[in-house]
Amino acid sequence: MVRVDLNCDMGESFGNFTIGDDAAILPFVSSVNVACGFHGGDPSVMRATVCAAAAHRVAIGAHPGLPDLAGFGRREMAVSPQEVYDMVTYQVGALLGVARAAGVGIRHVKPHGALYNMAATRAPLADAIALAVRDLDPTLLLMGLSGSALIDAGRAQGLHTASEVFADRNYQGDGTLVPRTRPDAMVTDVDVAVARAIRMVQSQHVIASDGSDIRVLTDSICIHGDAPHALLFAQRIRSALTAVGISVLALGAPSHN
Amino acid sequence: MVRVDLNCDMGESFGNFTIGDDAAILPFVSSVNVACGFHGGDPSVMRATVCAAAAHRVAIGAHPGLPDLAGFGRREMAVSPQEVYDMVTYQVGALLGVARAAGVGIRHVKPHGALYNMAATRAPLADAIALAVRDLDPTLLLMGLSGSALIDAGRAQGLHTASEVFADRNYQGDGTLVPRTRPDAMVTDVDVAVARAIRMVQSQHVIASDGSDIRVLTDSICIHGDAPHALLFAQRIRSALTAVGISVLALGAPSHN
Amino acid sequence: MVRVDLNCDMGESFGNFTIGDDAAILPFVSSVNVACGFHGGDPSVMRATVCAAAAHRVAIGAHPGLPDLAGFGRREMAVSPQEVYDMVTYQVGALLGVARAAGVGIRHVKPHGALYNMAATRAPLADAIALAVRDLDPTLLLMGLSGSALIDAGRAQGLHTASEVFADRNYQGDGTLVPRTRPDAMVTDVDVAVARAIRMVQSQHVIASDGSDIRVLTDSICIHGDAPHALLFAQRIRSALTAVGISVLALGAPSHN
Amino acid sequence: MVRVDLNCDMGESFGNFTIGDDAAILPFVSSVNVACGFHGGDPSVMRATVCAAAAHRVAIGAHPGLPDLAGFGRREMAVSPQEVYDMVTYQVGALLGVARAAGVGIRHVKPHGALYNMAATRAPLADAIALAVRDLDPTLLLMGLSGSALIDAGRAQGLHTASEVFADRNYQGDGTLVPRTRPDAMVTDVDVAVARAIRMVQSQHVIASDGSDIRVLTDSICIHGDAPHALLFAQRIRSALTAVGISVLALGAPSHN
Repeated sequence: MVRVDLNCDMGESFGNFTIGDDAAILPFVSSVNVACGFHGGDPSVMRATVCAAAAHRVAIGAHPGLPDLAGFGRREMAVSPQEVYDMVTYQVGALLGVARAAGVGIRHVKPHGALYNMAATRAPLADAIALAVRDLDPTLLLMGLSGSALIDAGRAQGLHTASEVFADRNYQGDGTLVPRTRPDAMVTDVDVAVARAIRMVQSQHVIASDGSDIRVLTDSICIHGDAPHALLFAQRIRSALTAVGISVLALGAPSHN
Repeated sequence: MVRVDLNCDMGESFGNFTIGDDAAILPFVSSVNVACGFHGGDPSVMRATVCAAAAHRVAIGAHPGLPDLAGFGRREMAVSPQEVYDMVTYQVGALLGVARAAGVGIRHVKPHGALYNMAATRAPLADAIALAVRDLDPTLLLMGLSGSALIDAGRAQGLHTASEVFADRNYQGDGTLVPRTRPDAMVTDVDVAVARAIRMVQSQHVIASDGSDIRVLTDSICIHGDAPHALLFAQRIRSALTAVGISVLALGAPSHN
Repeated sequence: MVRVDLNCDMGESFGNFTIGDDAAILPFVSSVNVACGFHGGDPSVMRATVCAAAAHRVAIGAHPGLPDLAGFGRREMAVSPQEVYDMVTYQVGALLGVARAAGVGIRHVKPHGALYNMAATRAPLADAIALAVRDLDPTLLLMGLSGSALIDAGRAQGLHTASEVFADRNYQGDGTLVPRTRPDAMVTDVDVAVARAIRMVQSQHVIASDGSDIRVLTDSICIHGDAPHALLFAQRIRSALTAVGISVLALGAPSHN
Repeated sequence: MVRVDLNCDMGESFGNFTIGDDAAILPFVSSVNVACGFHGGDPSVMRATVCAAAAHRVAIGAHPGLPDLAGFGRREMAVSPQEVYDMVTYQVGALLGVARAAGVGIRHVKPHGALYNMAATRAPLADAIALAVRDLDPTLLLMGLSGSALIDAGRAQGLHTASEVFADRNYQGDGTLVPRTRPDAMVTDVDVAVARAIRMVQSQHVIASDGSDIRVLTDSICIHGDAPHALLFAQRIRSALTAVGISVLALGAPSHN
């Protein structure tokens, strides 16, 4: 059976500030990454999000970010590996606390935004994240960009890892994402994005912006909940995957055949 | 054997901003309450603080506060019981994460500042804190002002509680603390404070600002680490307690005789 | 000529977090109150907001709030008059800086949320705000709840004041607003709200929640930009005012007849 | 007459968190750079600082920084020129508001920490700062590292500029400062620092870490108020300058001979 996880960032609202349409997208994904208060999210949003995810039997992950609410964690900051280690144990611990009080568990950790991208290429930061996850709970699965330093670091620490691909982001020839500051960062055509997703799962390859066909591992496909057409994209990609016989299942979930 | 815990708030520094002389006071106390990032503390300070406490074999507690760094968590805020529940599970969870990654455990929870005072008299907020602690980990001990609604709430939730007294704060006739906005809030004379502490432990009574002799329970005595003469006070009270045969032991620690 | 100002809070978005549909509502109001970064708004949002307002020839005011982004400045905090004075000079100064750099001026100051409500009934806080505005720029107009301590304080400091009414909020018999925590805080029926607005301007009276008919001054009517149906309400109230011959004009603007 | 300004960062305390011994150092400097709330400082600290500076007849400047309180504005962030422009108009405007309310004026603007260093070498960010200052108040003087892109940008915008040198920081051969992450960033020997300062003012040269003798302009010498021995260094450098006949005078202040 061919399977893939479909994940979406959620719980990024903050107080009176709302981001994303979490309730609408939740039925279409198999995993959610819950913001932990540094780039988005607050304790009450976190509780509501883990409860909603549990009610939909969707796997829950922590989504720690840089301490930059104003920049939504998308601006690189010159943080040290020790600072990264500490911000990860703090944020994942906070979500573990909120979730445990709500009676639900956490399955994975996926860094957010600039932290995710920095950990994709800079080994010391990737190592700090992997070490933090291992020290906190070695049964947590570490999710990162397919082919990234973060995946390498997770394996080196003996963690289960999940390689992630993006249907709506363009890749560079080296496997990193085209930065959001570039006009061609996003794949805005839903049909193109869906077709890319199917091909990535089936062939483990994607065409990069320089024309090369690069190899990817597709444990999970990311949906951007704050993108325009996020709901449409979630619906379309889920039905397209199912239509070609690919099961949408959370990471580590038992398959039914 | 007469025993008492001696606790001090620690880890309240934030980034480049330093508060208190934690390293100097640590040898004299049996428990520390570690700030969790809302009124003070940051992930790196939290890690360093739990490691230092563990190295001194001092019991560690979480010290959650209101989300008011500028006001150091000392300004009352109109927060709802649900908000309080959520900010407690978040902050205690964060410290649990930082501590678990460092290989150390947490023994108690003590609210900070205005949250502590609000929970002393307002049952709905006290209940929210007690419920949060129970839902998160029912083996955590809940520390609060002797005679407070928080102690009542902890008992109602089946938690172990620790009643706290202040040697350097004046009491009102109803058992609450004289607010910090009043000139007579603090006992500034170290000799007077030490004598009060000894009498509280031995007689379970303290003279309030209205002259009445009120009953207190003295599971733990608080030392304010950010007060002037904090170190001197810690040294003096510890030696005075020992001199009169009172053992200084962390809450729940086995006694040696 | 009967005239009234129609004002709306704007620029409350923060980074990636969007609140309100400012661009849609702007054509229907004569004044905007621009958040200054404490409860909402950030420097870039502030610049964009003052530029948009200037392009629509709408009067601009500063909208300082409590330092509580997570609570959107709607939770009362135990702040001192000195703290209030300082947070007002800081926030109004910040908006003056952003606006001056953009080549536009500021006409008024209106406190936000809990600060607005606290200043409506507590004279020391009202005095602190009025004094801050006077010390900063005595030509700024101070907007507050009709009949409030803030209006009294502004007059005592020699400021021009603007008394504000709310078409979509219920009043208590003493002229204060029904708190948002009560179910009857809001007038949700647009027809009712519009009719109340017209009657307030024409008769200077409104029916309070206790049935009494209380006197109000109606220099300005507030529209809540983050309310559901905010745009519909803005359109409806503007056309209803015009239909009955009431001119919608910014405070201090010359009338055309 | 040979003259130089002696400046020190001040007002970096935040709420209950104290940094530096401003009161002790104030008598020895001719200018202070006041933190504006982003990397340090808060509205009340800002007011107290401008009042203290005015009482000592010391020139006051704004010291805007990156929005990173936890990192004290010392961690580079990937901010855009537009974001930098906006954070400068906001922060300088805030200080102008606080100062105007206190009846005192502002003479200069000096970016803080990572913003200062980024503006030293990256022309787009330097241009954004210079443009923000010009748009806000073209009579404000722009202070930056001697030989930096910021000084060039200020001149290009027609601003008066002040070139700054550091007696207690080592220079690289290209005129930039040795980063704080390197062990040789600081000159810790006070005698060496004082001698360097004198030579810089007298010869307009300093020996860089690579041994080269690089040219500097010395309109102002910076004293780090949060450094150990800051007070001693301030006293020593002031008396040494006076002893060799160099007048310590604020930028733009009339000389007395």
